[in-house]
Amino acid sequence: MTNSKALARERLVSAAADMISRRGLSAMSIRELAKHAKAPLGSTYHYFPGGKSQVASEAIRFAGNTVAQALTEALEAGPVKGLRHFLGLWRDILIRSDFQAGCPVLSVATEEPAGEEGLAALEIAAAVFDNWESLLRDSLQLHGARKAPAAKLATLILASVEGSIAMCRARRSIKPLDDISSQLEFMIQLAISK
Amino acid sequence: MTNSKALARERLVSAAADMISRRGLSAMSIRELAKHAKAPLGSTYHYFPGGKSQVASEAIRFAGNTVAQALTEALEAGPVKGLRHFLGLWRDILIRSDFQAGCPVLSVATEEPAGEEGLAALEIAAAVFDNWESLLRDSLQLHGARKAPAAKLATLILASVEGSIAMCRARRSIKPLDDISSQLEFMIQLAISK
Repeated sequence: MTNSKALARERLVSAAADMISRRGLSAMSIRELAKHAKAPLGSTYHYFPGGKSQVASEAIRFAGNTVAQALTEALEAGPVKGLRHFLGLWRDILIRSDFQAGCPVLSVATEEPAGEEGLAALEIAAAVFDNWESLLRDSLQLHGARKAPAAKLATLILASVEGSIAMCRARRSIKPLDDISSQLEFMIQLAISK
Repeated sequence: MTNSKALARERLVSAAADMISRRGLSAMSIRELAKHAKAPLGSTYHYFPGGKSQVASEAIRFAGNTVAQALTEALEAGPVKGLRHFLGLWRDILIRSDFQAGCPVLSVATEEPAGEEGLAALEIAAAVFDNWESLLRDSLQLHGARKAPAAKLATLILASVEGSIAMCRARRSIKPLDDISSQLEFMIQLAISK
């Protein structure tokens, strides 16, 4: 695949992730995706012969990898800096979309899987949550937290970030995400100073 | 309205809340609701002349009030007992539905509102989150927490509970919800002992 074709394909996958985060998986269609990405309908079918199921799986995986890469880099400066970057990333998505977009993995995880495409997407969503959580957990352990508390704190961080994304969208306000940050930083400091 | 009619109506509202928690708001329809609640389609239109928009608004409000009532009662024994009851309530919904159902307010909050019915539902979702959060906050304050930290901790509790509901559904496991509980209890003890 040439570079420009690979870029066009990635733009579609990225647009699908954005769309799933806005409307959920069941409300997403190839036709709407083409419109959303301002791409010809034919090219969408060309790049994704597996249809919606293929697009959805790739979109969740893409979102998972994009966030994981940014989180991995940010965690190199320690778990507190990593957390700040993680929160900043969702903050940007919420504010730039006027609270219309959020986390596509959260959207998939709050929908009963419809058919095989739903089940596949849900399995990928679970793997993405696992991945983000393990990045947080490993960083906490690397900086001195014990294994079991590090794992539980990583769950608390991810759960409260995902939950606050939903609260921010309902309220059209960034306050819930901002309000959890200092408390999570406190918990991290406590875990790594033990 | 006679008692049996009021009961039939409430059964439909309750079924709608369950359905929204499973599939989201946009995937819910009056036809599917009648099927889900094993009620005649005609009765559904009879009780809800405003259609899907009316059912959705009432369903989110119903779920909000049901949880608020249980939470208020449980918080009478203090914020830790209240939290345990709140977690237990979601635990039951997740396990009994084999991780297919969750929180209808979370579902509405993760969907871009489609048309007026979506906007109305989203506004009610925001009000329900506010209500649950203020019940937690007031209980924390009543038991000795200072105002600002009590409000922030209430946000953290609600955000992490909602986020862990999504994580439990993705993983088909109750572990995320169980893993946040002792950490939230610790934060509560810390806030009220200051």
